[in-house]
Formats: sequence, C-alpha cells, structure tokens
Amino acid sequence: MQGAEQRTPPPAAYTPTDRTVPTRSAHRASYDKELVHAILDEGYVCHLGFVRDGAPVVLPTLYGRVGERLYVHGSTGSRPLRTAGRTDAGPGLAVCLTVTHVDGLVLARSAFHHSINYRSVVVHGVAHQVTDPEEKRLALDALVDHVVPGRSRDARPADAKESAATAVLRLELGEVSAKVRTGGVNDEPEDLSLPHWAGVVPLRKGYGTPVPDAALTPGTELPGYLAALSS
Amino acid sequence: MQGAEQRTPPPAAYTPTDRTVPTRSAHRASYDKELVHAILDEGYVCHLGFVRDGAPVVLPTLYGRVGERLYVHGSTGSRPLRTAGRTDAGPGLAVCLTVTHVDGLVLARSAFHHSINYRSVVVHGVAHQVTDPEEKRLALDALVDHVVPGRSRDARPADAKESAATAVLRLELGEVSAKVRTGGVNDEPEDLSLPHWAGVVPLRKGYGTPVPDAALTPGTELPGYLAALSS
Repeated sequence: MQGAEQRTPPPAAYTPTDRTVPTRSAHRASYDKELVHAILDEGYVCHLGFVRDGAPVVLPTLYGRVGERLYVHGSTGSRPLRTAGRTDAGPGLAVCLTVTHVDGLVLARSAFHHSINYRSVVVHGVAHQVTDPEEKRLALDALVDHVVPGRSRDARPADAKESAATAVLRLELGEVSAKVRTGGVNDEPEDLSLPHWAGVVPLRKGYGTPVPDAALTPGTELPGYLAALSS
Repeated sequence: MQGAEQRTPPPAAYTPTDRTVPTRSAHRASYDKELVHAILDEGYVCHLGFVRDGAPVVLPTLYGRVGERLYVHGSTGSRPLRTAGRTDAGPGLAVCLTVTHVDGLVLARSAFHHSINYRSVVVHGVAHQVTDPEEKRLALDALVDHVVPGRSRDARPADAKESAATAVLRLELGEVSAKVRTGGVNDEPEDLSLPHWAGVVPLRKGYGTPVPDAALTPGTELPGYLAALSS
C-alpha cells in the first residue's frame, strides 16, 4: 500500500461504451485522452450532428477545447442553439461531434483495399448552453485560440452586445473515441505480383503567406504567432 | 416559341427547401449544381450523419459521385448499412452528408468577427442500398476514382466475394445546398484603428512524395496520374 500522500493520476483514457466501440476495425480505435486531445486540437472545423424533426443534420462549425470540455458557438437565433434551449438547466441537445484529418491516400493493387490514412475523434453527448458569464468568456477565448493559439490576447474581446448575441454550447468529453489508420497497403498475398503501382500518397497541410486587411493601420507588424505558422 | 428541336438544358440549380435555406448568413448559400459538384469532387472524406436509437451519429467515410448520385460504402456488417436494410426497396436510411473544405483563417480585430473561409456542401436525403450489380460496379469504381481520378482502371476490380462483402448506399443529390465564405475580415468600422494585425491566413493543401509499397514489383513505374498530383 502506498503512502496517503500518493496522488491518483487522472485517468489517461475514456471508458468505452456501446456507442464508442466500433463494430468494424476495432484495432484502429483508441480511448487515449492524449491522442484524442491532439486530434481535436489540430482541427479547425468539427462536424456537429443533431436530430431535427427526426432527421439527422450535420453542420461544419468552429470549436474550442478547455480541458475536458468542448465548446461550439453560434448566433442565438441559429437552429441547433435554439433547440438546445436557453438555459444551462434545460434538457440540452443530443449531439455527435466529429473531427477528422486525412493524412494520406492508400492505393492498393486491388480496388477493395483502397483506403485513406486518417485520424478522427467522435464525441457523443448532450450539449448544454453556457450561462455562466465567466465560463462563456473562457469558451469564447478558447474558440478564438483554437483558430490561432494565443490570438485571443491580441484581439478586442466581445462586448456585452456581442456576447449576448452569441450562444455557446458546452459538450463534456465523456463518451469519446479516436480512430486512426496509418501505414501502408494491405493487399492480399496473391495480388502482390500484379503490375499496379501500390503505396501511399501523403497529404500535406500548410499555411500560405498571411494577407493583411487593406485597412490595416500602417506599420502594424505581423505578430510572431502568425509568422511562426507560415515559416 | 422555339423550334421543337430546341433542347431544354438540365436545371443548373437545386431547388431550395426548408432544410437547405439557412437561418443565418443566407447570402453565403448557393444551390448551383456546378459549385456543389466541384466542392464534392475536391473532398476525400464526407461526414455522414444518421440517427441511431434516437441519437445522432456522425462518421467520416469515403464517398464517390456519379452524376447526381453519391455513393458511400462499408462492410455489410457495419451499423449504418445494416440500418439501411438489405434491399433497394426498403425504407432506406435518413442521412445528412456533409463535405467541408477549410480555405483560410480570418483574423479580425475583434474576437467576435473571427471566422474561417470555407466551402461546404450539405446533402439531406434517404440513402438506399444498391442491389443492381452494374450500378454497384460503377459505384465501387467511383469510390476508387474519387481517391485518385483514373485509378479504378489501374487496380484489380472487386471479385465476387469482395463485392458481396461490401454494401453500397446510394444518395440522390436532390435536397442540397452549398455554403461558401471567401474574402477578408468584416470588422466594425470603429475597430479599424485598433492596433491588432488583421487579415487572412490561407490554408494550403498538397501532396507529398508517393511512398511505394515495400513489396512493389521491381521496375513498377509511378503512374502518370500520381506523378501529376505531386508535381
């Protein structure tokens, strides 16, 4: 038995559930928090799914992460945010939030084994509207910092009117899984001698040269956090 | 009145519906078929939403397009394909299929006006399982050609066993909209003199050098359709 001062480390993995254990390619699934966070933090847009009038709706939207919470935002008049209700205590909105990176094209000798290399995270849960002003402020900062880390400190924060016009939904990272495919082609042994080229075409992402606003105050330097992106 | 030989051109736009007219930023919506096809054809992965046990599910998956039909595929044992039923005549699966490209980071002087430049397509409809062998063959070719145009002619086609193990869903392009944000920042006039850098950081996508499979038959040349990608 360890001494009483021993700290319990936070759990390093999400607990799998019926919804997060895939029926196929289970070896590609992961519940590792560090991996999930890294995939989420690298994305710009998530695909937010919800049910409206019994039918699925999937919309791309910005998001931000603060620890084990994700935030999405929108106009207070937007459909998902209206559906989620106006209070933190309401029933909330059942959502599925998915982030995917495509890393490479996997060209096998057989059509059947064509694939892509990817990393994705799927989060199931019920999103609630954030009503606490301090949490809302932190969430809005996280949404801006998700676009470019550190940017929220170099922008005018939302004023009272802007904040009132913006609804923020909170989604806890509880029922979460990542799925990752890496590596090369998985052709059948009897196909290896076929004459077709086989292998992986990597996909690259990068940044172009920042384009300053035409009305930028003369002499405004490109901030370091942006120069670092495109270098 | 025109002569009887006059051809009626196919409609150039999808008909807007309640589901495809956005409640916000309606000026960014488009129903132009050419634009919709271009956005779809440039993507590698769609986000397919459906309802399971009353809750939304959003999964990334490959897709292909043949004219006004989209195809997605999966193992016959996968959940969405099981839900869609085993016959073309069945009730089908209500889906929302979304494809998004992120083109740039829009950094405004105010946190509120931060945004991204993007192009997205949202398709609503009911997906049906393809049972006609010829349509299934064309759909599987389209799925491979969506990864790299022309690739299906340079790969071993699915044999009977592989084809039987693969379920293909068809989704008609009927209830469809695109949404596009381009251009620069939209700051408030009174913010223009703030000292923050403002502008757009373009995102770039590209291809790395193809990595041949270790077991590639010696002397197999990189095909032209791949050399063109990474040039």
